[in-house]
Amino acid sequence: MDQSEADERIEIGDGDDGDHHHKQPLLVRRRTNASSQLAIVGANKSPIQSLDYEMIENDLLKQDWRSRTKVEIYQYVVLKWTLALLIGLITGLVGFFNNLGVENIAGFKLLLTNNLMINQKYHQAFAAYFGCNMILGVGAAALCAYIAPAAAGSGIPEVKAYLNGIDAHSILAPSTLFVKIFGSILGVAGGFVVGKEGPMVHTGACIANLLGQGGSRKYRLTWRWLRYFKNDRDRRDLITCGAAAGVAAAFRAPVGGVLFALEEAASWWRSALLWRTFFTTAVVAVVLRGLMQFCHQGEGKCGLFGEGGLIMFDVNSLEPAYTTPDLLAVIFLGVIGGLMGSLYNYLVDKVLRTYTTINGKGPIFKILLVMVISFMTSCIRFGLPLLSKCVPCSGECPNSPSTGFSMHYDSFQCPPNHFNDLSSLLFTTNDDAIRKLFIDSSESANAAFQLSSLIIFFVAIYLLGIVTYGVAIPSGLFIPVILAGASYGRLVGTVLNPFTDLDAGYFALLGAASFLGGTMRMTVSLCVILLELTNNLLMLPLVMLVLLVSKTVADCFNKGVYDQIVMLKGLPFMEAHAEPYMKNLVAGDVVSGPLFTFSGIEKVGTIVHALKVTGHHGFPVIDEPPLTDAPELCGLVLRSHLLVLLKHKTLFTRKRIMTRSTIIKKLKASDFAKPGLGRGISVKDLEFSEEEMEMFVDLHPITNKSPYTVVETMSLAKAALLFRELGLRHLLVVPKIPGRPPIVGILTRHDFMPEYILGLFPNLNRHK
Amino acid sequence: MDQSEADERIEIGDGDDGDHHHKQPLLVRRRTNASSQLAIVGANKSPIQSLDYEMIENDLLKQDWRSRTKVEIYQYVVLKWTLALLIGLITGLVGFFNNLGVENIAGFKLLLTNNLMINQKYHQAFAAYFGCNMILGVGAAALCAYIAPAAAGSGIPEVKAYLNGIDAHSILAPSTLFVKIFGSILGVAGGFVVGKEGPMVHTGACIANLLGQGGSRKYRLTWRWLRYFKNDRDRRDLITCGAAAGVAAAFRAPVGGVLFALEEAASWWRSALLWRTFFTTAVVAVVLRGLMQFCHQGEGKCGLFGEGGLIMFDVNSLEPAYTTPDLLAVIFLGVIGGLMGSLYNYLVDKVLRTYTTINGKGPIFKILLVMVISFMTSCIRFGLPLLSKCVPCSGECPNSPSTGFSMHYDSFQCPPNHFNDLSSLLFTTNDDAIRKLFIDSSESANAAFQLSSLIIFFVAIYLLGIVTYGVAIPSGLFIPVILAGASYGRLVGTVLNPFTDLDAGYFALLGAASFLGGTMRMTVSLCVILLELTNNLLMLPLVMLVLLVSKTVADCFNKGVYDQIVMLKGLPFMEAHAEPYMKNLVAGDVVSGPLFTFSGIEKVGTIVHALKVTGHHGFPVIDEPPLTDAPELCGLVLRSHLLVLLKHKTLFTRKRIMTRSTIIKKLKASDFAKPGLGRGISVKDLEFSEEEMEMFVDLHPITNKSPYTVVETMSLAKAALLFRELGLRHLLVVPKIPGRPPIVGILTRHDFMPEYILGLFPNLNRHK
Repeated sequence: MDQSEADERIEIGDGDDGDHHHKQPLLVRRRTNASSQLAIVGANKSPIQSLDYEMIENDLLKQDWRSRTKVEIYQYVVLKWTLALLIGLITGLVGFFNNLGVENIAGFKLLLTNNLMINQKYHQAFAAYFGCNMILGVGAAALCAYIAPAAAGSGIPEVKAYLNGIDAHSILAPSTLFVKIFGSILGVAGGFVVGKEGPMVHTGACIANLLGQGGSRKYRLTWRWLRYFKNDRDRRDLITCGAAAGVAAAFRAPVGGVLFALEEAASWWRSALLWRTFFTTAVVAVVLRGLMQFCHQGEGKCGLFGEGGLIMFDVNSLEPAYTTPDLLAVIFLGVIGGLMGSLYNYLVDKVLRTYTTINGKGPIFKILLVMVISFMTSCIRFGLPLLSKCVPCSGECPNSPSTGFSMHYDSFQCPPNHFNDLSSLLFTTNDDAIRKLFIDSSESANAAFQLSSLIIFFVAIYLLGIVTYGVAIPSGLFIPVILAGASYGRLVGTVLNPFTDLDAGYFALLGAASFLGGTMRMTVSLCVILLELTNNLLMLPLVMLVLLVSKTVADCFNKGVYDQIVMLKGLPFMEAHAEPYMKNLVAGDVVSGPLFTFSGIEKVGTIVHALKVTGHHGFPVIDEPPLTDAPELCGLVLRSHLLVLLKHKTLFTRKRIMTRSTIIKKLKASDFAKPGLGRGISVKDLEFSEEEMEMFVDLHPITNKSPYTVVETMSLAKAALLFRELGLRHLLVVPKIPGRPPIVGILTRHDFMPEYILGLFPNLNRHK
Repeated sequence: MDQSEADERIEIGDGDDGDHHHKQPLLVRRRTNASSQLAIVGANKSPIQSLDYEMIENDLLKQDWRSRTKVEIYQYVVLKWTLALLIGLITGLVGFFNNLGVENIAGFKLLLTNNLMINQKYHQAFAAYFGCNMILGVGAAALCAYIAPAAAGSGIPEVKAYLNGIDAHSILAPSTLFVKIFGSILGVAGGFVVGKEGPMVHTGACIANLLGQGGSRKYRLTWRWLRYFKNDRDRRDLITCGAAAGVAAAFRAPVGGVLFALEEAASWWRSALLWRTFFTTAVVAVVLRGLMQFCHQGEGKCGLFGEGGLIMFDVNSLEPAYTTPDLLAVIFLGVIGGLMGSLYNYLVDKVLRTYTTINGKGPIFKILLVMVISFMTSCIRFGLPLLSKCVPCSGECPNSPSTGFSMHYDSFQCPPNHFNDLSSLLFTTNDDAIRKLFIDSSESANAAFQLSSLIIFFVAIYLLGIVTYGVAIPSGLFIPVILAGASYGRLVGTVLNPFTDLDAGYFALLGAASFLGGTMRMTVSLCVILLELTNNLLMLPLVMLVLLVSKTVADCFNKGVYDQIVMLKGLPFMEAHAEPYMKNLVAGDVVSGPLFTFSGIEKVGTIVHALKVTGHHGFPVIDEPPLTDAPELCGLVLRSHLLVLLKHKTLFTRKRIMTRSTIIKKLKASDFAKPGLGRGISVKDLEFSEEEMEMFVDLHPITNKSPYTVVETMSLAKAALLFRELGLRHLLVVPKIPGRPPIVGILTRHDFMPEYILGLFPNLNRHK
């Protein structure tokens, strides 16, 4: 549709009565598309493909489906559940291994430092502490920088994007899995203010992908019997299970895991999937429980692995009674938490943009950046407590094993029977610090914190969390946010103590909820995760309230942190709802040419040319006279299917004749199974002689005969709904008026992106 | 498409290689459709309409959308949240009122009977008990039979069907709401083995519907400012919130409520809805908590309202440790629970079919049936404990108020310092019996039950539950199933006591889970509801395991109980997945004629005639020469919109001319707002003179210009996916080959129903 037509249409649409308020011609279309959709993952330009969840209805696959026996269908069902079981098992094992690694390495490091501290060798202690952190940090960074750059960061945005239908390069590759596991252990043990939850989610998704792909062909780990899962739909289901298993393993929160997958990760959801995800997380829960029981059976069986391993904060189990002033205090906490959460997102975004530039300069810069942050972290963790006052213990200083080995360090530089409350928070693992913040202040007199310590800790952790995310190590965001939120809540609770009956430990939980709500913007899943973590259901109403308030407040300012990172990485994420301005555009406005179409029986040369000069992944097939009376849309053929067909040169014919039955006999549906990204045939791999290029090939058997179509006058909003709900990759636009060529263009994910549309129509009001 | 064409197509599809295994011609199409989709709700034939979630893109509504000001959009958002708040508030209040009513009426009844028992007047006691039950039962039945027949039963199947897009008569009407509230109180207080959860879900949905419709026009309670919600999409969202609020109010389980709405009730789900539903249930939780605190402040403030009101079973809070034999016992429990759950469904189905016949004979038969069941229930509840042995109390017989007033009745006919454990289960309220079954047997020596009592109780409740569902009172299924399951679990736990460390009270919980899994077939939501009910998160892994096992076992035999009831009621429910045989059919196979189409500018007489002779709710509009060069599909016009247009006779013209601007000026979008069922204009209400019938009217402004279309060769499975995912009411089928009339037919919900398809093609194999 050219310029004049577009304007005309709008005139018809808006013309008759002039009482509405857009006076300028809205749809002045720019001739060239100024925006680029070339996405940047990490810092490398990489090809991003879309996934395709449409049912491909071509003769070959239909034939395959019809001939599938009952045994094969049964095999498929059994395999589906077996894979869910395996995902749960392996993710549970990895989660346990992760904890074991972190607890032992961090434990060794802290013991070493502590021994030096007891002997008052402060400089050597700092050197040991700093050295350990630096070595661990550089190790993690080197893994990320040289082996799998895609493993840096949280991983949740990438999994979320994958489940939305975006197949970015190597985000679920085996190398990523490897780096994610070991990098995460090194990073968390290295004292960074990072968590293991995001990496665990990514790990779970990688495991699921690896299993679903039938192993890795590159590393020669493949299984033939997994061929049924070589399609995007089944793979999506497996990866959803994997993401849920990751959360379940990180938090020991099986129900929270299911809800996380549902609320945050997945873009499409079915009831049957809920059921399978639930099974996977149940397996994770059972595995973790079994392994922990094994560890508890004998001392030393799992090294320094203490209670601290898998976080489970036991908050005061008394029923909290609250009054109206308490409610007001909680709402206030939620409002400020929401504000600080959205500020956190804003700052993370800014820092991340800077870091992307630095990291883009090369692996060595990545490592240098990690070293700087590691130095800063060590200084803060070791230095700040030295400035803090020592507090005398009431009675004996506690040294109970139930609170983990880290309680040993409470004394820090203090004289006997005194302890340093700031060091008990900073100079330990993150999980342990959270546990201490959540402790009920009435439980023991030593559980109270000085106001100054809480303020220092809060500021330090808030800022460290922001500057740490984005460096080249696997880094989850949950723990930094919970840490900052819990200290903020404890702070408010301590200040408000005279005015409220609620305990400061309870305030810490609510503070953590408010920060999580303010950054992640989840609701039900966070609520359930927090409840599963703290094992107290009676706090439900207040946690819900805080989450609602903080999410509402934060939503006024910016998007959730994961959505921000997806945007920053340039991943073309399809939102669930269409933007308002899409109602003012029609499908025909955004389709762009030139459109390559094939004839039902096409010359090999033409196909090869089209495949070479374009990057399109789908081509409309049009039957023309003399095959039919008038040009007629036959369907859509995929690039990957064309390449498979072209490989079989014996199928070429000298004349335009139908060779349907030969093709169906010679090719099997499994030849067209979709391999993982980057493993399909490329057009460059194929070579043709002059003679072959002049021959013909019948495209009918591999053409999807019933692609979804929309009429060109359908509003873009409505087309987007169809595209999104059905998870399409290509949506054909057909003309309104008969007699024109049977196809106007193809809509892809790209065409629904705000950047692209606003690039085409710069006059459009973004918000209306 | 006629017979010969259909056969030919199949020949082309299957012809070339004969190596597949269907030898008989699959698609012999029956000329007449033998199956009837006329659904039967209750026993009355009633018109069932579909809801329509498609974006209607006609000129008038587009105009309205464009001219909507920012203030109006803001107003809409505020209103949306205000409504969610109101739904939460009102549902919470109703839930509390319901409890108050039940506890006070049942308390009065039991006190009266008890006083007579203490004086050894057994005959009078039975007469009093029986009389009270009968009066309450007849009251509930009379309300149902005469005022709102749709209020009988659980209500969850109806809400589920509504949220799937089925608008059956009066299921959400104000009269239904009224009867549901009071009928449920009378029924539960009347000693029937029924619960209040289903009715609460239905109540919540009715409240939401009433609010969303802007009140009731019939009862003159309307609000003008609710006009934005007069469409199916917004109403669906509100009713989802209402259903969640109902569960939250019934169980005091806010998170469980959200998950219930998500897993069982809703057919379409968006993240934004999760968030709003969560808000609604949080409001319910806060309201309930506030009111209960009010009740607890002073004795007698809420009459006999004790702890028993809102069920919250506090199960032993120690961490249950389990070993491999325990796991095996639990799996065994799950398998048997699943079997008995599916047997329960089977029997409920059989009984329901019989009852439907009896109830169909008239209101008086409904009441008689209730009387019979009430008599049976009274006899069993009063008579069976008389047969049971008295057990001596260890020490004083407990009389503590913490376990509710019903503990007074433990003595029953027994001598002092003895108690009757069967009467303590049967001769009390259902909630109280559940609480006793869940009590940890180690907590007090009196908490143990005799094996014989448990067996008698289990058999009695299992059978009573089955025969009670289906009588004309509001009756939830949760409580009967939990009761039966808990007694079954306690029984198994008592038997296995020597072999396992798990407590019998814990087994009761697992038994309840297994029965729930076996009948309802939910997973995550049941798990969370059970956890919220019992307030112990540490039992999570075993509860998950039992639910998984019992659901898997039960799924081998039949469908979930709610799905069964939906089918039994003949509601045309669209499943999320397409049936396998739909892959063998194409869209063109099932569309049925004769197809009524209108011209872009149509004669009034033709429209009136079409509206009178058909019941269709959508008509394709085709522009024909001379308006266009060739016949061309303009779009789809809805019956309701046509009726509004026809009411405005001044818009008629004598000649075929476009009157677009006049129509847009004279009509407002709000004129086309969809009223609740049965409140729109009927074609019978309109009268036209001879002259008017000969005039023309321009349909273009009210025609949806971009309906979703599929090509006739698309497989029915793929078309069903589109239909279901987008929640359509009409799906246009267009021809493959150009040059034919631009539309082949319309697919509606009806055309995807298995009964209809298998009626057309009796040779189809249902399972392949």
